[in-house]
Amino acid sequence: MPARPPILAIVGATGTVGREMLDILASRDYPAGAVRLFASKRSAGSTIAYCDESITVNELTAGALEGVDIALFSAGSEVSRRFAPPAAASGVVVIDNSSAFRMEPEVPLVIPEVNGGILERGDGTGGCIIANPNCSTIILLMALTPIQRAFGIKRIIVSTYQAASGAGAAAMRELSDQSADVLAGRDARPVVFHEPCAFNVFSHNTKVDPATGRNVEEQKMIEETRKIWRDEQVAISTTCIRVPVLRAHAESINVELHRAASEARFRAALTDFPGLTIVDDRGSNDFPTSLKAAGGDDVLVGRIRPDASLPREDRGGETAHFGFDLFAAGDQLRKGAALNAIQIMDLVRQRVTSAV
Amino acid sequence: MPARPPILAIVGATGTVGREMLDILASRDYPAGAVRLFASKRSAGSTIAYCDESITVNELTAGALEGVDIALFSAGSEVSRRFAPPAAASGVVVIDNSSAFRMEPEVPLVIPEVNGGILERGDGTGGCIIANPNCSTIILLMALTPIQRAFGIKRIIVSTYQAASGAGAAAMRELSDQSADVLAGRDARPVVFHEPCAFNVFSHNTKVDPATGRNVEEQKMIEETRKIWRDEQVAISTTCIRVPVLRAHAESINVELHRAASEARFRAALTDFPGLTIVDDRGSNDFPTSLKAAGGDDVLVGRIRPDASLPREDRGGETAHFGFDLFAAGDQLRKGAALNAIQIMDLVRQRVTSAV
Repeated sequence: MPARPPILAIVGATGTVGREMLDILASRDYPAGAVRLFASKRSAGSTIAYCDESITVNELTAGALEGVDIALFSAGSEVSRRFAPPAAASGVVVIDNSSAFRMEPEVPLVIPEVNGGILERGDGTGGCIIANPNCSTIILLMALTPIQRAFGIKRIIVSTYQAASGAGAAAMRELSDQSADVLAGRDARPVVFHEPCAFNVFSHNTKVDPATGRNVEEQKMIEETRKIWRDEQVAISTTCIRVPVLRAHAESINVELHRAASEARFRAALTDFPGLTIVDDRGSNDFPTSLKAAGGDDVLVGRIRPDASLPREDRGGETAHFGFDLFAAGDQLRKGAALNAIQIMDLVRQRVTSAV
Repeated sequence: MPARPPILAIVGATGTVGREMLDILASRDYPAGAVRLFASKRSAGSTIAYCDESITVNELTAGALEGVDIALFSAGSEVSRRFAPPAAASGVVVIDNSSAFRMEPEVPLVIPEVNGGILERGDGTGGCIIANPNCSTIILLMALTPIQRAFGIKRIIVSTYQAASGAGAAAMRELSDQSADVLAGRDARPVVFHEPCAFNVFSHNTKVDPATGRNVEEQKMIEETRKIWRDEQVAISTTCIRVPVLRAHAESINVELHRAASEARFRAALTDFPGLTIVDDRGSNDFPTSLKAAGGDDVLVGRIRPDASLPREDRGGETAHFGFDLFAAGDQLRKGAALNAIQIMDLVRQRVTSAV
């Protein structure tokens, strides 16, 4: 990839994540040589405004990514499986938001603040696939990585409060339309989800493994955490739940540490981690919420408190705890998807610049 | 208390729980000698339809409960503290839905299916106060008591998904009105809650202890569980969260057992526990939801699966696990409050009948 402003492609440009990517690029006035937009045949021919331009959306076909330096894929696993490998083989850096390649041993799975360093090993030339983790994994590891670095994490128990946006624009519309229906006394008509989503809480819509009882989302969070942290030993229990929220996920997290920490040291570890903001005021009950996270770049963390259900140690006037509870929230479309992909692109671009 | 049909009083008759109590009594054609309704001065003089009657609501004043056999209190802790002790002293059986007396050592804290037996010790004569547990505690212990009896429970980690109804009728209206406002592009205006409740997830609205970081709801769940189970050792971590749901609470529960259980035995223990229904079909993703629980009497439990983050044992062809995850949902106004209180009343009446 050359050091000149890169030719970018967004695959899945008409989807919620694709549009969020364009919003972020436009807000940064991103120095791209060109931005090319691709989508399914159905959306081909439509135009999308970007900065002062109006860009026509093209159908993604074999060879359509020729000349592109970096392609941001967000069109589902099937499209990624079909088009990403040949693009990478022809020299394109593919940053893939689908789950298609995340667990491939040779594909880096990257949250820049957490393990961006693994991208430094390449020389910046040649195509490749870099995977963007699952949105719930990203939010979890943004909150926990500083803790893992400081004290080691033995076990994680997490329950999610996931927004409709993770299931796409149609799911977000379904939540709004159903809410209006219910308020007007009409029946909720589920189409995208298997359950009514308005004024309801239900188990995540991904397939449930008949043997383990875990759904795909829960399994992804476990496997991706282990890969990103390079820690096959960390014990993780995940429960993934949808809530009637539009675009930010929240997570209730319980952690068991390898090395006990005082509450002050635990908090200090969370401070200054890039991309993480502590929202934690007990007096005013000011903690992370879905709405506080929505539209923002940072993952919010709060409700930080020792878990009295695990042992504690006295250390000369300071009480150190082996367990803590916390509550995190992050925008599913931004840090959970589009922003993280663009941050990966930034790292790739830096690599090129420093290689030159 | 006499064996004839009792004179009942409902204190807080115009509130959400009071009205739910009346609905349940009417649906059962409850054999009461009379039903007297009390509320604050503001509501006095209004009438409420009950079966074929129209009952006038009176202001609760000193002596107003004279002649009453059983009084169901649901008007907040302050009213209970002021009026319940003199009523009990004058011979009334008070079943109190507030938190005022729950932790008093001499006050029974009762979920009939769980520890109803402790009411058998009385002879059914004379007044007393019996406390109705917190709604989140009831739902948790309905799901876990059969497990505790079968295998012993060492540690519980629970995150709640709590409905607006727990904060009363005004909170339910706030959720509906705010949702309509947001859908129409208007700002959400929080009044009852400290955060917007439409399309949002936020930490429970009770006060947070500045020392422990736990809110009042979380502390109640811990203390009440220990009292009801008579187990001061059980380790419990609670995280209480509000979700935009009208009237049913859900809970994501992780348990660590004293004695490992195979998944089959764990499920078998949950089967046939009165008031508990298993909703757990992995193939069709059919599990408990807030809406499935709303309006029903039973607590629903599902997403039953071994927690792979805890050790397992091989026992001659059967794998036994020390940890399990599950997801429960229950109607906050019914089993979480009104129904449980009426079930306590049923036990008290049985006691009288069997004493006679």
